[in-house]
Amino acid sequence: MKINLKQELVTQWFKNLQIIICKNIEEIENNKVLFKSKNWLRNKKKNEGGGVSKLLKNGKIFDKVGVNFSEVYGKFPNELKGKIPGTKENTKFWATGVSIVMHMRNPHVPAMHFNTRYIITNHGWFGGGMDVTPCFKDNKLKKWLNKNLKTMCDRHNKKYFKNYSKWCDEYFYLPHRKEMRGIGGIFFDYKKDNWNKDFNFVKDVGLEFIKLFNEIIDKKNKIKWTKMDKETQFLKRGRYVEFNLLYDRGTKFGIQTGGNIDAILMSLPPLAKWN
Amino acid sequence: MKINLKQELVTQWFKNLQIIICKNIEEIENNKVLFKSKNWLRNKKKNEGGGVSKLLKNGKIFDKVGVNFSEVYGKFPNELKGKIPGTKENTKFWATGVSIVMHMRNPHVPAMHFNTRYIITNHGWFGGGMDVTPCFKDNKLKKWLNKNLKTMCDRHNKKYFKNYSKWCDEYFYLPHRKEMRGIGGIFFDYKKDNWNKDFNFVKDVGLEFIKLFNEIIDKKNKIKWTKMDKETQFLKRGRYVEFNLLYDRGTKFGIQTGGNIDAILMSLPPLAKWN
Repeated sequence: MKINLKQELVTQWFKNLQIIICKNIEEIENNKVLFKSKNWLRNKKKNEGGGVSKLLKNGKIFDKVGVNFSEVYGKFPNELKGKIPGTKENTKFWATGVSIVMHMRNPHVPAMHFNTRYIITNHGWFGGGMDVTPCFKDNKLKKWLNKNLKTMCDRHNKKYFKNYSKWCDEYFYLPHRKEMRGIGGIFFDYKKDNWNKDFNFVKDVGLEFIKLFNEIIDKKNKIKWTKMDKETQFLKRGRYVEFNLLYDRGTKFGIQTGGNIDAILMSLPPLAKWN
Repeated sequence: MKINLKQELVTQWFKNLQIIICKNIEEIENNKVLFKSKNWLRNKKKNEGGGVSKLLKNGKIFDKVGVNFSEVYGKFPNELKGKIPGTKENTKFWATGVSIVMHMRNPHVPAMHFNTRYIITNHGWFGGGMDVTPCFKDNKLKKWLNKNLKTMCDRHNKKYFKNYSKWCDEYFYLPHRKEMRGIGGIFFDYKKDNWNKDFNFVKDVGLEFIKLFNEIIDKKNKIKWTKMDKETQFLKRGRYVEFNLLYDRGTKFGIQTGGNIDAILMSLPPLAKWN
């Protein structure tokens, strides 16, 4: 597929973001636990892109963290025709993205999720966001998180935070449990207002995520935890699994478009429990 | 909703089956671990039926086993209109069923699943089946299981086994993993050939399940297991979670029709792992 400058710029940014974040995480682990990297191809017979999935497990701080980059293209399966913007006439697509899920050892450090993506069909758009899932009610963290995200969003557009935090709350919701998954964040999709501004925003979302996860780990990892806290975390991770398999668009998109299954399901926690 | 004799007979059979099987399981546990029982209502405001969900946990033989009975009625949500047989004109339904999932302590004893159901919309039909999911390749068990199920099916109709075991293999399949969930069993749905014969078959499926799970536990629970075997089981249970949340019709049906969420998700293992 022909790559234009925009596609090239975004792809490079996502690739670099993956490298920067992985380095950062390894430093948090004092470089004693390192990422394992896997390259995969969407199609072994013809060139339809692929990705690099990076996984770190059993750290002192991170129980499991997956950092995935992918750049894939080709055709959507027919069942998606017309269901994704710009696919009414044909199912050609090109997509790149980076996505991260962190499951933490200390139950007082929330699970954190980040994704930014750029998708092209008949037209192109950005999507992404980040959200935070603690095991325990934490209004202080929620306030702090929202304040930071609002400041970041406001740099780009005063309406973003209100819209995207609402979208996040609506998206990360488990209707069968009548529960929110986490305490909020931002979520956006089909973003195609002004390419330069949109790309700047997407870059800023990535940099903000780096700042926030470092601060959250600093703040929360000091708190002592008990075996009971860990049990609470295992049950909360059960909800995480339920959300990702029952509702998450990224998971569905990945499975339906023949993505790499290990990369797609890297978001699942290392261990989950159900009562 | 008016209950006719057929509905009454099936409901009574399912209720009794739940009681018999729970007693059987408690006996296997030497009556030292007992089921906890919960009654639930589909709708707290108006009479739309409900169920009895029974759960036994942390036994010597069973890690977790759920045995659910339900009898629910009312209207399907509009999104299901026309998607379930006999709902084109209206969404009224009545349904009863019993379903069981056993997650075993010894990783050499397979997980076992059973369900029989009777659903009425504009017309009525039976569905159900049973299937077996070991953590390790086990061709001998597979052969033995199929032989037994074939003998049982043949008592009713010589075509049943071939059709229903094929349906089972197709149904309990994880396309994203390109893996079968288990080693087979039988699965049938929309069964409305001859009410008396169908009901006899459904009863026999229940009795056969009792015979088979007892024999399987007898046979397999003697095998010594290691910590490594248990780890293999935890990963296999991850696949079980994936299937139930991504594909299982019963789970989807339950969630979409406002069933009791704890009863629906009782099928999930107590602990699952992902690499």
